[in-house]
Amino acid sequence: MKKLADIGLIGLAVMGENLVLNMESKGYTVAVFNRTVDKVDKFVNGRGAGKNFIGAHSIEELCASLEKPRKVMMLVKAGKPVDDFIELIIPHLEKGDIIIDGGNSHFPDTIRRTKYVESKGLLYIGTGVSGGEEGALKGPSMMPGGSPAAWPAVKEIFQAVAAKVEDGEPCCDWVGEDGAGHFVKMVHNGIEYGDMQIICEAYQLMKEMLGMSADEMHEVFKAWNNDVLDSYLIEITRDILGFKDEDGEPLVEKILDTAGQKGTGKWTGVSALDLGIPLTLIGESVFARCLSAQKDLRVEASKVINGPAAQFEGDKAQMIDDLKNALFGAKIISYAQGYNLMMEAAKEYGWNLNYGGIALMWRGGCIIRSVFLADIKTAFDKNPDLANLLLDPYFKEKVEAAQVGWRRVCATALSNGIPVPALTSALCYFDGFRSERLPANLLQAQRDYFGAHTYERLDKPRGQFFHTNWTGRGGDTASSTYEV
Amino acid sequence: MKKLADIGLIGLAVMGENLVLNMESKGYTVAVFNRTVDKVDKFVNGRGAGKNFIGAHSIEELCASLEKPRKVMMLVKAGKPVDDFIELIIPHLEKGDIIIDGGNSHFPDTIRRTKYVESKGLLYIGTGVSGGEEGALKGPSMMPGGSPAAWPAVKEIFQAVAAKVEDGEPCCDWVGEDGAGHFVKMVHNGIEYGDMQIICEAYQLMKEMLGMSADEMHEVFKAWNNDVLDSYLIEITRDILGFKDEDGEPLVEKILDTAGQKGTGKWTGVSALDLGIPLTLIGESVFARCLSAQKDLRVEASKVINGPAAQFEGDKAQMIDDLKNALFGAKIISYAQGYNLMMEAAKEYGWNLNYGGIALMWRGGCIIRSVFLADIKTAFDKNPDLANLLLDPYFKEKVEAAQVGWRRVCATALSNGIPVPALTSALCYFDGFRSERLPANLLQAQRDYFGAHTYERLDKPRGQFFHTNWTGRGGDTASSTYEV
Repeated sequence: MKKLADIGLIGLAVMGENLVLNMESKGYTVAVFNRTVDKVDKFVNGRGAGKNFIGAHSIEELCASLEKPRKVMMLVKAGKPVDDFIELIIPHLEKGDIIIDGGNSHFPDTIRRTKYVESKGLLYIGTGVSGGEEGALKGPSMMPGGSPAAWPAVKEIFQAVAAKVEDGEPCCDWVGEDGAGHFVKMVHNGIEYGDMQIICEAYQLMKEMLGMSADEMHEVFKAWNNDVLDSYLIEITRDILGFKDEDGEPLVEKILDTAGQKGTGKWTGVSALDLGIPLTLIGESVFARCLSAQKDLRVEASKVINGPAAQFEGDKAQMIDDLKNALFGAKIISYAQGYNLMMEAAKEYGWNLNYGGIALMWRGGCIIRSVFLADIKTAFDKNPDLANLLLDPYFKEKVEAAQVGWRRVCATALSNGIPVPALTSALCYFDGFRSERLPANLLQAQRDYFGAHTYERLDKPRGQFFHTNWTGRGGDTASSTYEV
Repeated sequence: MKKLADIGLIGLAVMGENLVLNMESKGYTVAVFNRTVDKVDKFVNGRGAGKNFIGAHSIEELCASLEKPRKVMMLVKAGKPVDDFIELIIPHLEKGDIIIDGGNSHFPDTIRRTKYVESKGLLYIGTGVSGGEEGALKGPSMMPGGSPAAWPAVKEIFQAVAAKVEDGEPCCDWVGEDGAGHFVKMVHNGIEYGDMQIICEAYQLMKEMLGMSADEMHEVFKAWNNDVLDSYLIEITRDILGFKDEDGEPLVEKILDTAGQKGTGKWTGVSALDLGIPLTLIGESVFARCLSAQKDLRVEASKVINGPAAQFEGDKAQMIDDLKNALFGAKIISYAQGYNLMMEAAKEYGWNLNYGGIALMWRGGCIIRSVFLADIKTAFDKNPDLANLLLDPYFKEKVEAAQVGWRRVCATALSNGIPVPALTSALCYFDGFRSERLPANLLQAQRDYFGAHTYERLDKPRGQFFHTNWTGRGGDTASSTYEV
């Protein structure tokens, strides 16, 4: 009798190929299928030759080749293709079998699909997979959520293929119910947008204000990567700044400065707005990409609108050290905001999230991997009910220490006309967060003035609402029908 | 034979009552209906006594009392009630009759409803109505969109009741197709969020950094209201700061500093993210409300997290003048961003928007009314194809002049630990907008490094994509399936 496969995979793009090669290298037999069926044979006789793969030429064949409970993983384009494949797979499965979506699905879709697949007596997993093509091959970060009953059946395979941190712990653990895995992956990507943006702002300041060359910046990022900022994105920025084009000039300077933003960064911002969580750094990072995309308009504007000539007369080495602190401070804020969002989502959607575990999942394998995430894990290990990362003693101390240089960077950039939207937004959030009083009292007065929206008072219990006839003209009736 | 009414209204909350009293005062006969029917008689025999109102006790009766083409306006809670009433109204109308939604509906609903109502042979209007209860009575700003064929039938009534600017022009004109009116109203509200937030930031700076009393700030706002900032919101802020509680202390200082944000401000931010438009000032304003709502967390944080002691040693009068410039500069940015959003929406949804007309509609009657809007109208009158407000010679000159003080305000605030998220965000946008080069080239290099996402080059035509094997390790294959 033919040996059955441990898991099946649909979707043999580079990502899928790499992931199944990873699985096979850990001792698993993998059945593979692709909609364009000749890719199956091409793979099995190519990169998969001589290895434990079973090529399937139909979904029926794929499902028939699997050990029970069957595990069918899709790595296909997010959206309709996922729904289509679910419909095609379901007839070939039986009670307790598991459908897994490893693509970049939007979490509300995963919530819906989990319910739907469970209604058919099957189990569902939506898992974030991060680390790109190289990560898929060598060990991605994996963030699975969905039907809790499915986890024991896939835990061994998932943790075997996932990235490992120094002590051998896998960067994969159960995230939570239905859409939780894809939500956490979405927040990961939002944080990635933020980390990239603050690095870009540091680069622009060094280039435009300090007049540094790519080689000099390369050295700075090299040093930073051996310090608190030690992370994959700092490391590749170091490499990029050191990379020369064929003519010996830095390649990065020849690249067009426009970026897209149609993906998960946008979703993260929308989710923050929906849940009412101030996710300012990521929001600014998404908008910075939008502004970068308006290249023609910017070129036109740059010709007519004048600003200050950037001139830095201070201590350059000090400013570079300040920049490191600015990045570190802003990074702490970004993660504090991201965790704030996840905590609110957990409340809203009824998820039991393991916050330390999430830091561990991001610790290796994925784009935002960094030494820093170990400290986040420690913070939640020490206090699983930590309400905000900034209230953890370690991070409180670090952000307090970072602020001096961070403030100098922002003030200098704004004076010199260098845009640093994410660094300043994070600093303003920090100052707002540690403010007992924000000026929203005036805002509430305005709303009561023009719309009779009422307000609460500092000297009265919460939940008691007051209206003032500010002008002596309007009525004393509070508004109930209209909201601004 | 009984006289027929010119228009019918459903929904006799204060807003509805005021609007029909306004209509009646302009010579129109109005039929009124309310779901809780005793409100109808109460109104007709109360505030409406002796006036040209027809009280209807059913929707059938309401529709039967109208001149043709019948115009039935709803002023009810946004959402399901609107759909419900549409269903109830339709059977009593005939070809060419008009259903009008004057509530705060979300524009995609209005797009959908226009199509639906038109499919029944009727016409539909979704109109923004701004100005609160007082505006409804004395002259609101009205922003109607929907079925273009409906406009001639309602134009006279709408323009009669709408606010008028000095030269008698009504603050109401046709906005555009289907959801355009509600979209423009939504942007209006987003801008309102922004205007309120920058005023709050100025207030906090004066209070916390300059140590000014409410009376002193009252005087500053009074002066500002006679200058470039002349506007309704500056005016009411002046009044609020001058208003004393029963004990003689400024009332504003006793109001709780938490604000909600579940409405149209949020929608504006989501729409900007969806359309890829950098709407940073409004985004930060929405998030500032979210942070204000986290009062307990802030109180806790304020006890443990240290920042700089705010100390201002400069010229106070100069700083107040700088603040005026900061507000003016940020305000120009906010409207530039809002118009950018409307222009993109017009492209996306196929609307023909009249940008100068929109400025005129906002010029009076509504919360954001200001002298400033006349200059926006002038800018679009001079150049209807203006790509961005900052490229208009007048605004370019004004924002250039404002930036010196604006930069000082932001740099000083960040150094002193006073949160000014909207003022700095706007300044960073300004600096980004006038940058020929933004650092997105580095970002594109990063994306190509970790995900083979490819990039364009400055020295090659747009649309040509390149991939670099940055490490010498990965393949030369560009990614097509995964997006970060």
